[in-house]
Amino acid sequence: LVTVALDAMGGDYAPGEIVRGAVLAVNELPVNIILFGIEDAIRKELALAGAIPSDRIRVVHCPEVVEMAESPSLSYKRKTKSSIRMGLEATKNGEAQAFVSAGNTGAVMFASTFVLGRIAGVERPAIAGVIPTQNGSLVMLDLGSTVDCRASHLSQFAIMGHHFSKNIMGVENPRVGLLNIGEEAEKGNLLTLAAFDLIKKLPIRFVGNIEGKELLFDKADVVVCDGFVGNSLLKFGEGAAKLFMDFFKGAAKSSLLALIGLLFLAPSLKRFRKKFDYDEVGGAVLLGVDGVSIIAHGSASATAMKSAIRTAVRAVEGDMVGKIAAALK
Amino acid sequence: LVTVALDAMGGDYAPGEIVRGAVLAVNELPVNIILFGIEDAIRKELALAGAIPSDRIRVVHCPEVVEMAESPSLSYKRKTKSSIRMGLEATKNGEAQAFVSAGNTGAVMFASTFVLGRIAGVERPAIAGVIPTQNGSLVMLDLGSTVDCRASHLSQFAIMGHHFSKNIMGVENPRVGLLNIGEEAEKGNLLTLAAFDLIKKLPIRFVGNIEGKELLFDKADVVVCDGFVGNSLLKFGEGAAKLFMDFFKGAAKSSLLALIGLLFLAPSLKRFRKKFDYDEVGGAVLLGVDGVSIIAHGSASATAMKSAIRTAVRAVEGDMVGKIAAALK
Repeated sequence: LVTVALDAMGGDYAPGEIVRGAVLAVNELPVNIILFGIEDAIRKELALAGAIPSDRIRVVHCPEVVEMAESPSLSYKRKTKSSIRMGLEATKNGEAQAFVSAGNTGAVMFASTFVLGRIAGVERPAIAGVIPTQNGSLVMLDLGSTVDCRASHLSQFAIMGHHFSKNIMGVENPRVGLLNIGEEAEKGNLLTLAAFDLIKKLPIRFVGNIEGKELLFDKADVVVCDGFVGNSLLKFGEGAAKLFMDFFKGAAKSSLLALIGLLFLAPSLKRFRKKFDYDEVGGAVLLGVDGVSIIAHGSASATAMKSAIRTAVRAVEGDMVGKIAAALK
Repeated sequence: LVTVALDAMGGDYAPGEIVRGAVLAVNELPVNIILFGIEDAIRKELALAGAIPSDRIRVVHCPEVVEMAESPSLSYKRKTKSSIRMGLEATKNGEAQAFVSAGNTGAVMFASTFVLGRIAGVERPAIAGVIPTQNGSLVMLDLGSTVDCRASHLSQFAIMGHHFSKNIMGVENPRVGLLNIGEEAEKGNLLTLAAFDLIKKLPIRFVGNIEGKELLFDKADVVVCDGFVGNSLLKFGEGAAKLFMDFFKGAAKSSLLALIGLLFLAPSLKRFRKKFDYDEVGGAVLLGVDGVSIIAHGSASATAMKSAIRTAVRAVEGDMVGKIAAALK
C-alpha cells in the first residue's frame, strides 16, 4: 500500500474534515495515512469519526501550525515543527510516498520545494490542476506557482503535464495545447510564440494553440500557460460560477415562477454542479519537485480530501515523478 | 450633430445589419452617418430598410473590402480604397468625428494607428471594452491590442481607462483597479508589481489589485491588465457562457422536467442574457489613437451597431481624446 503523509491542520475545516477524509480514504483506497498535526485534536476527531489509530491510520504530533495567511518563507524558517514541514520531511525520508495538504498554498509550495528539492533539470515548478470540461476534463498548468515564465519553462510544463495526464488521469496519448490568444501558430505574445516553437519539437502530441473560448470544450487533455494567466483564469472561472449561482438564488427569491422553474431544473443543475465541483476534482499537484506533493482547495471537505489522496496514490503508483525526471534529464 | 464614419462592409452580417444599425442610429441618436462601402449594396439595404440617403445618412463608395481573415498590414498596404481605410481617412480629415467598424479587428487597429496616428505621449494603444458585472459594468483594458506590456503601458492604460469611464460611462470619479493574482500590494508578477507602484502615484482613484474572482462583482469601474491576459479572460468568459447555455439546451432536450423548469425560468434567464448581451454593450474603443475609433463585435446586429455608434457619439461629445491627450502630455 502507498503511505500518504496528510497535513491534518491545513484548510478552513481542519482538522475535522481532514481527519474524516483520511478515514474515508483508508476505507475506500489502497492507502495508509499518517496524520500530522496537534495530536489531541486529531485523536478527538478520529474518535468522533468512529475510527481508532492503527497501521492504516497513524498520528504524528506536530506542535506548530502554519496559519492560512502566514508568509511562506517566514513560516518555513520559524515553524520547523509544523505539520507541513514534518509531513514533507516524512515524505522525503521515505516514511511516506506522498504529501497532501489543504493548507496555506504558498507555504506548501515553498516548503515542498525546499524539503523535497527540485527534480534535476527542472527550471521551475508548476501547479497542475484538473479542470472539468464539457465532456470530460483537462489538466491545466501552471495555476500560479511560476508567475514570470520563460518559453523554456512552458516547454517543461508541457512535458510534466503530459506525464500528469498519462499517469494520474489515465489518458493514453494526451493532446497537449498551449493557451494562446489565437489558433494560428503566428498568434501570441513573445512568450507564447517562443514556447510554441519549443513545444512543437518535443516528443509529445502537441495540438497547437488553444484559445480561452475553447478551453472548456475538450480540444486538449493538457493546456499549458504562464502561472499569472492560469491563476487569473481559474479565479475568474470561480467568480463567473458564483455570479451564475447568485443570479439563480436572486431569481428564486424575487419570483415564484422562477422558484418553481428551479425546482423542476434541480436534478439537472445538481448534475452540472457535481461536474464542476472541486470536491470531485482531487486537488492540484505541485510538479517539478522531487516527490509527490498535492495541494487541496482551502475549503476542502472530507470528500475533497479523499479525492486529493486518490490523486496522490495514482501519482505514486504511476511513478509520475520518476517519469518526469527521466524525460527532463 | 456628431458625424460618424461607418464601415458598412465589416462584420459577419454586413452590409445588412450595419445599414439597419445606421438607420436606427439616425432615428434615435443625435448623429449623422456616412456609410463607407460598396455603394450599390448599401443603397439596396437602405431601400430595404425604408430609408433614403439624406444629410443625415450619406453613402461614400469604396471599391475594396477587407475580409475578416485578411492580414492587417497587407490589407492596409494593398487596399487603399477599402471602407476601413477611407472611413478612417474621412475621420482624420474632419469630415467625420468618429469611425465605427465591426470588421477585421486587427485591420481596424492597424489602420487606425496609421491613419489617425497616436496621441503624443502614448506609448501603446489599448482596446477598452465594457464588461457587464453583477450590479453594473466595468471598463476593462487592454483586451488584446498590446500583448507584451511594460509597467508604463499599464500605467497609461489606467489614465485612459479613467477617461473612458468618466466620459463614455458617466462615472464621476471612477475606481481604477489592477488585475492581479492577489489583493495585497506585494502580490503579482514582475509586471503588475511595477505597475502597482506607478499607478498608485497617478492623480486618479486607484483602488489597488483586483483578483479574477472579484472582477464581476463591482469592486472597480476600470480594470487594467496586459492585452494577453485581458484577451484570454474575455474569450474564456465567452466560452464559459456558451458552456452554460449548451448545458441548458441539453437538459431541456433530455428531460421534460428540465424543459418545464426552463420555461418557468425563461423571463429570468432572458433578463440575465440581456444583461450580458454584446448587443447592449456598445463596442470596444481603441484608446491611444488620435481620434475616436470603435470596434464592434464581428457578429454585431443592427442594435449592436447602434450601441457602438452611441459609444462613438459619447466619446466625441465628452472630448475623450482631448482629455487623454492633456493627461498624457
